[in-house]
Amino acid sequence: MTADNRFQSLAQELGHDFSGEIKIGGNYTPVMRDGHQLYVSGQIPRVGDEVLFVGPVGDVGDGFDVAQGQQAAAVCAMRALAFLQRAAGSLDAISSIPRITVYVRSAPTFIQQSEVADGASDVLCRVLGPRGVHTRTSVGVLQLPKGAAVELDLLAITVAAPA
Amino acid sequence: MTADNRFQSLAQELGHDFSGEIKIGGNYTPVMRDGHQLYVSGQIPRVGDEVLFVGPVGDVGDGFDVAQGQQAAAVCAMRALAFLQRAAGSLDAISSIPRITVYVRSAPTFIQQSEVADGASDVLCRVLGPRGVHTRTSVGVLQLPKGAAVELDLLAITVAAPA
Amino acid sequence: MTADNRFQSLAQELGHDFSGEIKIGGNYTPVMRDGHQLYVSGQIPRVGDEVLFVGPVGDVGDGFDVAQGQQAAAVCAMRALAFLQRAAGSLDAISSIPRITVYVRSAPTFIQQSEVADGASDVLCRVLGPRGVHTRTSVGVLQLPKGAAVELDLLAITVAAPA
Repeated sequence: MTADNRFQSLAQELGHDFSGEIKIGGNYTPVMRDGHQLYVSGQIPRVGDEVLFVGPVGDVGDGFDVAQGQQAAAVCAMRALAFLQRAAGSLDAISSIPRITVYVRSAPTFIQQSEVADGASDVLCRVLGPRGVHTRTSVGVLQLPKGAAVELDLLAITVAAPA
Repeated sequence: MTADNRFQSLAQELGHDFSGEIKIGGNYTPVMRDGHQLYVSGQIPRVGDEVLFVGPVGDVGDGFDVAQGQQAAAVCAMRALAFLQRAAGSLDAISSIPRITVYVRSAPTFIQQSEVADGASDVLCRVLGPRGVHTRTSVGVLQLPKGAAVELDLLAITVAAPA
Repeated sequence: MTADNRFQSLAQELGHDFSGEIKIGGNYTPVMRDGHQLYVSGQIPRVGDEVLFVGPVGDVGDGFDVAQGQQAAAVCAMRALAFLQRAAGSLDAISSIPRITVYVRSAPTFIQQSEVADGASDVLCRVLGPRGVHTRTSVGVLQLPKGAAVELDLLAITVAAPA
């Protein structure tokens, strides 16, 4: 089973379609290549026009719970993979993910940002297998664009730079 | 018209002089090269001794408005360009900007961090043209050094590493 | 005196042992190599099972003071060095540190994030000497994993990629 197949299966399981046009805000680009490195812009849990998780993640009834935060992080990771798939032609052309950074919009006392980020890490490893292993930084921020619960960016490596 | 000329024109338009000595805080370095990659330290909207925008960006009369936040982001981007110009010899030696990260000191309900970051993206594209296109991550943070409204860092690529 | 010796001396001076197994949270990896680049995951000031500095850094009796924040940042930097040492075989194999990012959990009015980050920069330069010079981004965030006072990630360069 290819990584592209696993991506499609996971998209169906999550109930979202990442194959259509993904809207991005602002005047930047979703992916940029430098040699064999692919940089992906910060992704919020948006599908089409809708941001699926708007609000902080909290631990005392204030905002989303950890499981919901993980779902938000998973959608961010799927968006990042969708962009990598287009930029590299196939997710099987991704050889590693050196770095992801996960920003969790947090209630003031919420300290489980790493657990929320696990939602993204799980997606990367389910789709890319051992090639999805990564270093990670998780932080708790006051706000995010559109009021999103999570934002994620990453750096991926392709097996070979295009000629 | 060269990118260096465009930089100078934009500096005059903004009314600031980025050609003098730029003070930086702390015991780090503003730019570091690894091969053809140039890493630039986080820049706040400081010109000389003065931080031009101190305070949060907000949407309900609390702090700077979006337009002011964009001006702050523009100054951060100009500072980053000033450092790239010195490190690379000329801004025409910059071939791409794979990544910028824009931290916006935000009022609790402010969610237009992407719009603020457009102020930096516009500067990069005005000065560098198509070579200024970049991936971007915008987040809303509680505080920034010196109480600055915006902080920006970036990674640039030079056409060739020096011998 | 080698960088490894200086690391060991500083660990003793700080009163912590970084030679044992370092626990990390989550399902990611502490270090990843891409060619000659080594990416290190976000480090909090944890030694063994204990996070040494839990709480915000503040300036009005609210949380840790700047000196304590610097100590927290120093422990984060030592952890990062411990991982680099294992990944590269020796800290003398580290040729430069292009980038560090320091997230300071901040009280609302605290604006000395750069001064806190100096605690990490000092460690890098004391252990690595001129090869420890780096670019730096310091931001003030609402929360961090485990409620830690500081989190730090970095990118290091090794003298040569392994065969």
